[in-house]
Amino acid sequence: MNSKELTRLLQSLVDKQISVADGVERLKQLPFEDLGIAQIDHHRELRQGVPEIILGENKSVEQLQAILATMHKCGSNILATRLGADKAELLLKQYPEGDYDRDARTFCLVQKPIEESGRGTVMVVCAGTSDIPVAREATVTARMLGNRVEELVDVGVAGIHRLLARGEQLQKAAVIIVIAGMEGALPSVIGGLVAVPVIAVPTSVGYGAAFGGIAALLGMLNSCASGVTVVNIDNGFGAAFAANRINRKG
Amino acid sequence: MNSKELTRLLQSLVDKQISVADGVERLKQLPFEDLGIAQIDHHRELRQGVPEIILGENKSVEQLQAILATMHKCGSNILATRLGADKAELLLKQYPEGDYDRDARTFCLVQKPIEESGRGTVMVVCAGTSDIPVAREATVTARMLGNRVEELVDVGVAGIHRLLARGEQLQKAAVIIVIAGMEGALPSVIGGLVAVPVIAVPTSVGYGAAFGGIAALLGMLNSCASGVTVVNIDNGFGAAFAANRINRKG
Amino acid sequence: MNSKELTRLLQSLVDKQISVADGVERLKQLPFEDLGIAQIDHHRELRQGVPEIILGENKSVEQLQAILATMHKCGSNILATRLGADKAELLLKQYPEGDYDRDARTFCLVQKPIEESGRGTVMVVCAGTSDIPVAREATVTARMLGNRVEELVDVGVAGIHRLLARGEQLQKAAVIIVIAGMEGALPSVIGGLVAVPVIAVPTSVGYGAAFGGIAALLGMLNSCASGVTVVNIDNGFGAAFAANRINRKG
Amino acid sequence: MNSKELTRLLQSLVDKQISVADGVERLKQLPFEDLGIAQIDHHRELRQGVPEIILGENKSVEQLQAILATMHKCGSNILATRLGADKAELLLKQYPEGDYDRDARTFCLVQKPIEESGRGTVMVVCAGTSDIPVAREATVTARMLGNRVEELVDVGVAGIHRLLARGEQLQKAAVIIVIAGMEGALPSVIGGLVAVPVIAVPTSVGYGAAFGGIAALLGMLNSCASGVTVVNIDNGFGAAFAANRINRKG
Amino acid sequence: MNSKELTRLLQSLVDKQISVADGVERLKQLPFEDLGIAQIDHHRELRQGVPEIILGENKSVEQLQAILATMHKCGSNILATRLGADKAELLLKQYPEGDYDRDARTFCLVQKPIEESGRGTVMVVCAGTSDIPVAREATVTARMLGNRVEELVDVGVAGIHRLLARGEQLQKAAVIIVIAGMEGALPSVIGGLVAVPVIAVPTSVGYGAAFGGIAALLGMLNSCASGVTVVNIDNGFGAAFAANRINRKG
Amino acid sequence: MNSKELTRLLQSLVDKQISVADGVERLKQLPFEDLGIAQIDHHRELRQGVPEIILGENKSVEQLQAILATMHKCGSNILATRLGADKAELLLKQYPEGDYDRDARTFCLVQKPIEESGRGTVMVVCAGTSDIPVAREATVTARMLGNRVEELVDVGVAGIHRLLARGEQLQKAAVIIVIAGMEGALPSVIGGLVAVPVIAVPTSVGYGAAFGGIAALLGMLNSCASGVTVVNIDNGFGAAFAANRINRKG
Amino acid sequence: MNSKELTRLLQSLVDKQISVADGVERLKQLPFEDLGIAQIDHHRELRQGVPEIILGENKSVEQLQAILATMHKCGSNILATRLGADKAELLLKQYPEGDYDRDARTFCLVQKPIEESGRGTVMVVCAGTSDIPVAREATVTARMLGNRVEELVDVGVAGIHRLLARGEQLQKAAVIIVIAGMEGALPSVIGGLVAVPVIAVPTSVGYGAAFGGIAALLGMLNSCASGVTVVNIDNGFGAAFAANRINRKG
Amino acid sequence: MNSKELTRLLQSLVDKQISVADGVERLKQLPFEDLGIAQIDHHRELRQGVPEIILGENKSVEQLQAILATMHKCGSNILATRLGADKAELLLKQYPEGDYDRDARTFCLVQKPIEESGRGTVMVVCAGTSDIPVAREATVTARMLGNRVEELVDVGVAGIHRLLARGEQLQKAAVIIVIAGMEGALPSVIGGLVAVPVIAVPTSVGYGAAFGGIAALLGMLNSCASGVTVVNIDNGFGAAFAANRINRKG
Repeated sequence: MNSKELTRLLQSLVDKQISVADGVERLKQLPFEDLGIAQIDHHRELRQGVPEIILGENKSVEQLQAILATMHKCGSNILATRLGADKAELLLKQYPEGDYDRDARTFCLVQKPIEESGRGTVMVVCAGTSDIPVAREATVTARMLGNRVEELVDVGVAGIHRLLARGEQLQKAAVIIVIAGMEGALPSVIGGLVAVPVIAVPTSVGYGAAFGGIAALLGMLNSCASGVTVVNIDNGFGAAFAANRINRKG
Repeated sequence: MNSKELTRLLQSLVDKQISVADGVERLKQLPFEDLGIAQIDHHRELRQGVPEIILGENKSVEQLQAILATMHKCGSNILATRLGADKAELLLKQYPEGDYDRDARTFCLVQKPIEESGRGTVMVVCAGTSDIPVAREATVTARMLGNRVEELVDVGVAGIHRLLARGEQLQKAAVIIVIAGMEGALPSVIGGLVAVPVIAVPTSVGYGAAFGGIAALLGMLNSCASGVTVVNIDNGFGAAFAANRINRKG
Repeated sequence: MNSKELTRLLQSLVDKQISVADGVERLKQLPFEDLGIAQIDHHRELRQGVPEIILGENKSVEQLQAILATMHKCGSNILATRLGADKAELLLKQYPEGDYDRDARTFCLVQKPIEESGRGTVMVVCAGTSDIPVAREATVTARMLGNRVEELVDVGVAGIHRLLARGEQLQKAAVIIVIAGMEGALPSVIGGLVAVPVIAVPTSVGYGAAFGGIAALLGMLNSCASGVTVVNIDNGFGAAFAANRINRKG
Repeated sequence: MNSKELTRLLQSLVDKQISVADGVERLKQLPFEDLGIAQIDHHRELRQGVPEIILGENKSVEQLQAILATMHKCGSNILATRLGADKAELLLKQYPEGDYDRDARTFCLVQKPIEESGRGTVMVVCAGTSDIPVAREATVTARMLGNRVEELVDVGVAGIHRLLARGEQLQKAAVIIVIAGMEGALPSVIGGLVAVPVIAVPTSVGYGAAFGGIAALLGMLNSCASGVTVVNIDNGFGAAFAANRINRKG
Repeated sequence: MNSKELTRLLQSLVDKQISVADGVERLKQLPFEDLGIAQIDHHRELRQGVPEIILGENKSVEQLQAILATMHKCGSNILATRLGADKAELLLKQYPEGDYDRDARTFCLVQKPIEESGRGTVMVVCAGTSDIPVAREATVTARMLGNRVEELVDVGVAGIHRLLARGEQLQKAAVIIVIAGMEGALPSVIGGLVAVPVIAVPTSVGYGAAFGGIAALLGMLNSCASGVTVVNIDNGFGAAFAANRINRKG
Repeated sequence: MNSKELTRLLQSLVDKQISVADGVERLKQLPFEDLGIAQIDHHRELRQGVPEIILGENKSVEQLQAILATMHKCGSNILATRLGADKAELLLKQYPEGDYDRDARTFCLVQKPIEESGRGTVMVVCAGTSDIPVAREATVTARMLGNRVEELVDVGVAGIHRLLARGEQLQKAAVIIVIAGMEGALPSVIGGLVAVPVIAVPTSVGYGAAFGGIAALLGMLNSCASGVTVVNIDNGFGAAFAANRINRKG
Repeated sequence: MNSKELTRLLQSLVDKQISVADGVERLKQLPFEDLGIAQIDHHRELRQGVPEIILGENKSVEQLQAILATMHKCGSNILATRLGADKAELLLKQYPEGDYDRDARTFCLVQKPIEESGRGTVMVVCAGTSDIPVAREATVTARMLGNRVEELVDVGVAGIHRLLARGEQLQKAAVIIVIAGMEGALPSVIGGLVAVPVIAVPTSVGYGAAFGGIAALLGMLNSCASGVTVVNIDNGFGAAFAANRINRKG
Repeated sequence: MNSKELTRLLQSLVDKQISVADGVERLKQLPFEDLGIAQIDHHRELRQGVPEIILGENKSVEQLQAILATMHKCGSNILATRLGADKAELLLKQYPEGDYDRDARTFCLVQKPIEESGRGTVMVVCAGTSDIPVAREATVTARMLGNRVEELVDVGVAGIHRLLARGEQLQKAAVIIVIAGMEGALPSVIGGLVAVPVIAVPTSVGYGAAFGGIAALLGMLNSCASGVTVVNIDNGFGAAFAANRINRKG
């Protein structure tokens, strides 16, 4: 509800097209729908340019189905993340046109074509083979949000020449998402090589003093390469969401 | 050293303009200068579009002077951050044209005009009065890097109406840096209001279970507003550096 | 055993209605019953106005049955919390009049009518769909203790307008229990909107740097909204118990 | 701005007492005043029933004076907390009618009489002599907010008889604030003795594995006495603020 | 190998009853037996007055059987702790005269009568029903080591009168082992009531901010009752072992 | 107040030597004295066999003087611990017969002769020169409580032969207090050498990952030598207090 | 690609044996092979003297098979670590000449004879029976890398004589890997006994405050025996890899 | 006391050159000297090949002087580390031939020439200017122990080309000590470039989530480059001591 709409609403009140009671009601009501278990926010797309996205984790199949039904009705493109294979199977029965990615653990339901709307390419780079699930979540999310994506896998810092060989490709990206577990050093090296925004994603890959991703998280927060920003451990989705905001035209 | 330069170098070798030994030498040498205590990287500006920036903390006045002297000679614009007032005073004696900001603890030496080169405005928002030093560091840095900056102070979530009153101003920014201590909730609320990139900076403001900024840091990493990225505690500089990368044209 | 009772006891001693040995015995004995595995405290209701409540977690079915049998005999209303569905099933066979709530994981056995005894409404608000189990535990507990309860679900701070639309409803409550995981920012916003007591419950909802609820817990302890108090992670029961104390007349 | 005021505003618009532009303006403007360094919220008293309170920590004397001047002009009662003795001295020169408490580190400026408005007594209990500063902050705050306060000092659990001797006094309070460092066990014992709301305040008293109050904080969050709620380490102010909300009539 | 034995050995050398080579060999060899997977220390009983005790956790059934066989051969009394029920079943088949306690998860094989050798009673006190497994481990261990043991269950600090009723019983013990989870406050209260040694055992009972026993551990380490010593979380065995050392005559 | 006294009190009531009102009063009153800032517990000596001991830390000189005056009047022996040299100097002016130990930071005022009342020797062993202050605090405390004390300094595990040379001396002690910083391994080695009770005291000696004594604390809690109990970091006083309880006759 | 090779390449360019474009291409290309999921680094053996080693954890059987196939083709010796028994079984079907060690969880495929190339013996010492899996991983790795290895098991510090009996054997080693859980004190004692390099490996053996190996890790990092270096918790492989580097001739 | 010496001792006993009592005495006595405050270990040089080294931290000037006097008398070379400038000044007055390094905070007293005894060069590499003090401590220590040392400063990973330019120099070292703060990524990159032993030293350089070196420590422990071992935060001394052991001939 922006200034223009507010002006229009008040004018219609002055023009007696609506009553004072209606005015109060409309000013108090906000554009969301109450399902009891969740408030679907149909206007987020207008407000932020992206569809509502469902965090699959911790939701029962029943809850997922109720939320999906409401969203499906509106014809939106739908993305559910952190969705276990068992839950996905049940959703696929109901929405066979949907697409489930086992690595990314994402479920996509494309109801209207996705336009590539970014200024450039979102580059998704990961340090090791074990980081692939997080990288895939980032890739799927960025594509659903209308970005062109390139992936680069297994270029960890212990074999620095593998990374350096890709220097130019990295320099050309609009945004780079760098995913790494263990000591999480890759964003520091890439951040020093390029001039574009770098979003670092620590992963829970590692053992012992990796503490489920804390070591990588701290490494990235303390990166000696200026300009690296960080998201939560294993949060490929969040990195892609941020990358999309950066890559948007206008 | 990009592909084009490499081609040119090898061609000059083939053309016998340089010897094989020279070629080996030039391929091995990289463009930095060794001061003994620090390696000045004059090519970073070419590589990343920004001047070398000095982290003042933990450096002695002698070290700072040696580094500044080398950089000054090159005519670059210089920014030193986290510089105590006592060290700043000594530098100001030597470079009276410099500018020291007591809040931001930054020292700026502008030797060539700074062009505004960003796509839009960098908005620096902070939750409380105590967060101002970090906000100032972000503002000074972003300006030195060629960005137009606006500041918004004391709009913490406990008085949410103060923030909501600025909704449109926030929506118009190209990037928003959100700075908060204590529970660090402000980026979540702003991240939900706008569609532009949001960089969150936790501050060490607070006491007890604030743990010197850890509470705010964790709050921001776990933001329920998608697309928020985070930098280190009190790292106003890093947030501005990342914002600059996002705001760059091209 | 208050002053009046003590006076009466000593008087009956002076009046030789009881012997010195009896007096010693009665002053030493306290009103609890020893089951070997647990000491049932039948007088807590007198002392604190609420029945003994059983923490189901870590108790075997045999232990639960022994404790329930003793309490059932007394005709008290009984509440067991954190009770797994498998254990609940066995209790329901024995007490088919009991009621098990799968979300809240609570088992209620109402043997005498529950009177609404509070000064006003206890409002239970939760940030996201995943916080519902904790919210339900709070609701069931507060109702068993004789409070009128209203629930408000999925009003997290990333969509602040959903919350603001309920401002008046919040202002009218006698106590508000605010439940949130991830960054746990909701109590700060609500605490700033209302003038009534706010009890914050962090939940273990989240992943990575949410650290099983620590991020939310720290966020709430550092709330910039004064007057927010906090209970343990996922402790819907404790919040309701505290809300009941606040909401009691007299 | 409640429903009634909104109705009145819209009516005056319909009645052409104000223009549409005015209506937009008034709906957009919120009742706070911008000092540059801080946004003074004169309406908080209406909204929450208490004056703006200043957190003295991390504010310069200049900032404090600017904020005080604005608040003083309005004739409000003013409370500044966590104020060092050196800053207090400067404020006292300007406002000699103010009152500085060295233990509590609070500065009070009473411009209009404080009415006792609570339903009962706020009891402030502390475990040891070293907890007195936090207890005093709670006492001063609760009194400034219009509560009758009683204090009980040095009744830690290692000498449990000292506490038990005060059982009746504790039972009669409307709210009890329990302050303890080290293992923070006192709220558990008191929570089991009384039926009124108990707010626990961990203090940073202790050494070694007390970790600046973390041991006490964890102890209180895990209290086996149901109904204990907790505030941040050393947060006597917050406890009193919450106690005031609980103790308010209506 | 004490001074007397050394003197005797050297004398026999001087007396030519043994050769120099034998002397070297005997001084180099120490009284343990190498099983490949473990070094059985048959002399510990002499050195410390107790039999070798087997930590069952992390050992395979094959390893346990090999170790037991060697010890059984020597006719020692054997105690295995932290032994899962499945492993115990296999050992019981081989040693049907053994005794497995499901609560304590201990396996005892008594081959020679245990004499009560302590100066007094070891009292094992636990706060809640959920702490019973740790209490049982302590009780079984203390008895195997030749102590008279009494148990007191469910006397947590939230119902302090239950504990106070047992004051005299506590005062009479030679050593008290106090076991508690959650906030771990019980040792502080008991430590203040009695003059005998108190060994505190934190348990992993609790949830959320109990952090698997850390809250209780910190509570006990910071006990305001002087003279409380602490062992590892859930370490009923270690507490009993220490209590036995304290309770030994001589 | 034990059973015998209670019987006597009730009998005097029956015998009309005291009135009912007196009886109520005496049963309610407990033997402590209220100084406003602290409750002096003159009966602790009866109850626990030791005088009240003052924790000097966090107490002002005024508070210390008030407490000392009350205790001095009673003719008790007095021990103040963790007392800074500056505060000690002021106390020494008032009580020139007192004794201040700069290493231990203890102040002793012996008003009646201390009898050696223990069953044997308390051995105080420390790993390195830097642990001496904690060792001294333990020694002074144990002596004030009536124990014979021996000290053994600088026998850390990195030079294990220095320790082994003292094996017999260690075996002869009644209790051993083992003090170590850094990795805190000494109690494990000593615990394996002797059969007497071992109390481990971690110290804050070390740097980096010593974390102010946490490394040593964890090392001691996880000691592979059974029967080691632990006190708080740097808590030489508490170790001596516990050792005294163990060493007491009867 | 060393200086000599670079010289040769440039010379062949000058000699027109290759074109400028070829030169650019060869200088840009680095010697690794892209499998899509992983970049096999065939030149590591040249660069570091060891074959590529596969971390089995977090890799699917399909990924393992693809990587193994490529490596097998080259005739290298292959070592896969942290490989579950189920995955190993599938690999053994395909490579029946392989060898799987259930304790070490390693899979070895020896295609060309392993020469013993070290300067001396790598000694692998572990404190307890539960540490054997980590010790075995170290042993298998060190042997695959061409070292002579000796193992010493169950010589923890609580029975120090068992260790001292092996003093000479320890002194003769070229490198010692010391593996311990719980308090991790063994490296301190061994580090004080010998003059050779000691690599400490903390294990996750222990419970409660062992925190999955953190206690042992901290113990080792703070070792009072100078010259001890540490690797990650349970990282037997890494310790052996480092030992191999130390033990290499040349 | 090795086997040969033991044989000789026993033989002299058999030969009646010494008495049995003497034999017992000599076997019991070990070669250290007791200063009361410290046990000087003159035989460590024989046992480990290095002189006793004094940790200056936490020692008073008096203690330092007593220890130095004893060591000086023996003509050993002496190294004191972590010595504040004020203490150093006092020692220099007494031993003007000593050498104090302000960066390294080391005091060296060379009484007999130091022979270069290593197999190769110890390379000391540090990431940034702020790491220099730790690097210097490593350099001074390694030289005192008889190693040839080279230093390489300011080659952090954010400017990876600066490091790569030194590839050959790194490859030629016998051991590399890599020192870095912040995210501590440098050892991972160097570990991947070279085949020699790499010892990583985290430094406390950084702020916020660097947590005084914990981020760097965790980064190094989780290094994806195999064969990196780690020492305590800021422990340049320990790294050099370990490097010396690795670099020793024989």
